[in-house]
Amino acid sequence: MEVRTQFYTFGEEPDSRLALHDGTEFGPVTLAYETYGTLNEAKDNAILVFHALSGSQHVCGFNPTVPNTGDRWNSECQTGWWDDFVGPEKPVDTNRFFVICVNYFGGCYGTTGPSSINPETGKEYGGAFPQISFGDIVDSQIPLFDHLGISRFFAAIGSSLGGMLVMNFAARYPDRVSRVIPVACGIESTTLTRVHNLEQILAIENDPNYCNGHYYDGPAPLRGLALARMISHKTFVSLHAMEARMTEKCEQEQDEFSWYKIRTPLESYILHQGRKFLRRFDANTYLYLVAGWTNYNLARDVGKSDYNEVFKECHHQEYLIFSIDSDCCFYPDEQEFMKDKLLASGIKTEFVVITSDKGHDSFLLEPDLYSGPIKKILEK
Amino acid sequence: MEVRTQFYTFGEEPDSRLALHDGTEFGPVTLAYETYGTLNEAKDNAILVFHALSGSQHVCGFNPTVPNTGDRWNSECQTGWWDDFVGPEKPVDTNRFFVICVNYFGGCYGTTGPSSINPETGKEYGGAFPQISFGDIVDSQIPLFDHLGISRFFAAIGSSLGGMLVMNFAARYPDRVSRVIPVACGIESTTLTRVHNLEQILAIENDPNYCNGHYYDGPAPLRGLALARMISHKTFVSLHAMEARMTEKCEQEQDEFSWYKIRTPLESYILHQGRKFLRRFDANTYLYLVAGWTNYNLARDVGKSDYNEVFKECHHQEYLIFSIDSDCCFYPDEQEFMKDKLLASGIKTEFVVITSDKGHDSFLLEPDLYSGPIKKILEK
Repeated sequence: MEVRTQFYTFGEEPDSRLALHDGTEFGPVTLAYETYGTLNEAKDNAILVFHALSGSQHVCGFNPTVPNTGDRWNSECQTGWWDDFVGPEKPVDTNRFFVICVNYFGGCYGTTGPSSINPETGKEYGGAFPQISFGDIVDSQIPLFDHLGISRFFAAIGSSLGGMLVMNFAARYPDRVSRVIPVACGIESTTLTRVHNLEQILAIENDPNYCNGHYYDGPAPLRGLALARMISHKTFVSLHAMEARMTEKCEQEQDEFSWYKIRTPLESYILHQGRKFLRRFDANTYLYLVAGWTNYNLARDVGKSDYNEVFKECHHQEYLIFSIDSDCCFYPDEQEFMKDKLLASGIKTEFVVITSDKGHDSFLLEPDLYSGPIKKILEK
Repeated sequence: MEVRTQFYTFGEEPDSRLALHDGTEFGPVTLAYETYGTLNEAKDNAILVFHALSGSQHVCGFNPTVPNTGDRWNSECQTGWWDDFVGPEKPVDTNRFFVICVNYFGGCYGTTGPSSINPETGKEYGGAFPQISFGDIVDSQIPLFDHLGISRFFAAIGSSLGGMLVMNFAARYPDRVSRVIPVACGIESTTLTRVHNLEQILAIENDPNYCNGHYYDGPAPLRGLALARMISHKTFVSLHAMEARMTEKCEQEQDEFSWYKIRTPLESYILHQGRKFLRRFDANTYLYLVAGWTNYNLARDVGKSDYNEVFKECHHQEYLIFSIDSDCCFYPDEQEFMKDKLLASGIKTEFVVITSDKGHDSFLLEPDLYSGPIKKILEK
């Protein structure tokens, strides 16, 4: 199934600009999004998907090219990141549902972000792009939903970073969604996450090519981005999985090191992950989303001090939480915490623990483990 | 008790050079070492201490200054790193024992290393210093032991990286030591260690000031070293301990970031750890020791395929292994593995699990938890 990314622009007029968490306004904003299936007359069969940190609006099918993404839209991007999950007759069945996913504000796959051209200067925003919160990302999508006439989503689903955005959307716009499905995520950044994220921010900012984010005229901070990706990658897969994935091939690119020689397939594998990633992603977008993650705290974002207040308007909603027992990016404790807060607030919540040896990546690799509970909540 | 570092130089003549694992030879080698207590007539009361990655020859007492250490020998170094542990009437009692500790070959506290002057060029070795194995470090100390007339140590003790060196010394020079005390270490670098170490190597090598290790004429790769230290620091303390250690002070040095603003005491604390460290350590030494750690595998270093062979000549030795239950730098599995291999080889081994909430750093902070078993084995 070949698909194309669509675009929607708002905020060209001062009064329609996007109001950011820091009190500033931003516009214009172009959103890159994809839709699958047909929106019915009542416009009540829409399912909203939030993508992960390094994901895009391209959930399923084949999309050969996306305008304004430079050479980032490569073969790794062309097949939807959740193709086994969303489509005709799939767990999220597009014969019945109208599915939409929007590339994030600050992103690098067509939505306005640091790598976009600032109409006022004719040059990329770069480091001048405003720091964004997850609330800003959610807010940026609302005008598109209104434009499409979708007042309430049948369901919203997101994994990893996308799961945190689902929770932000459901709590801050309770009337806009009925079923909420956060997968392998949390509602407050943890100490370990903030440590890992700070390491990644420094890895990129220490790269001499970073130039405070204004690197689009010169070489990109690829070594920094590769190191950042390596730091995060170990949390996506179990270490056993990492060892299992290693080839016996042990390569070292000439420019990679001065004196240190790669000796093990492990090191070769990790470097390969870093290299592969930086061909398709923008360092600024990575930095902005990681910073947003570090500062994520649902209660604070909603402006409440306790979770009973946070979920006060959510009693008509129903939650389905997925927890992966081998996840070392968002540890099971985090989903437990989320579940406890929802139940303590009297919200209908189902909690499913996925038994997997794939770690955090399970949500991308093992759709069969998730399809049962998802079909069930979508059939209600 | 004020002490001074002593120096011993060998390898000035071609036939006395240090033979390295890679087949090359190196010389001259100057060793910086300290001794405490008195070597008896029989020279059989000597205890050898191996220091940790960022440690030095200065185990106990107060040492105001060490020649040829630039401005690295600061107030953080002046009090011995194991002062509560070694000294008169202390767990390792210098009224009875002659204790010696040698700064590692490749080090930065007086022993020949990358920051030392190459007599052939009149400039620092920098990146031209040979890559070293832990076996090379052990080998470099043997001429000093012979010079002092110590043919067999009463005991050898080492923690963390020092523990790996103790094991290398005991297995490769079995007749030179009777009691072997490895603390919070392992005998093979693990996948997670190699991942963390590669991140740290890249953090330093990505620093524009690194210049392939030849940075002594210009600014040092401080940002890279700080990031490397941050990456490792999280494994030294438990995350709870990290949170507990945080002050509410939240500082950011002007030059530190371009746009990212430190928002949490956690980030401030982590950056402080990095900053503090780089004032007293050399990036090349850090890189060389981390690389040696990554490539550490006791069986391979001894040139044997199984551990029965490795410990074949060790049956007269007695081992005391300390394992810290909250250690996330050398996980308890690693000491279990070591214990199992020793016992399976028929070696007398005592295994002590330390219950602590201090994580890996417990061996520096809680001498009382270790003194009982150590006194016991030293009294035999």
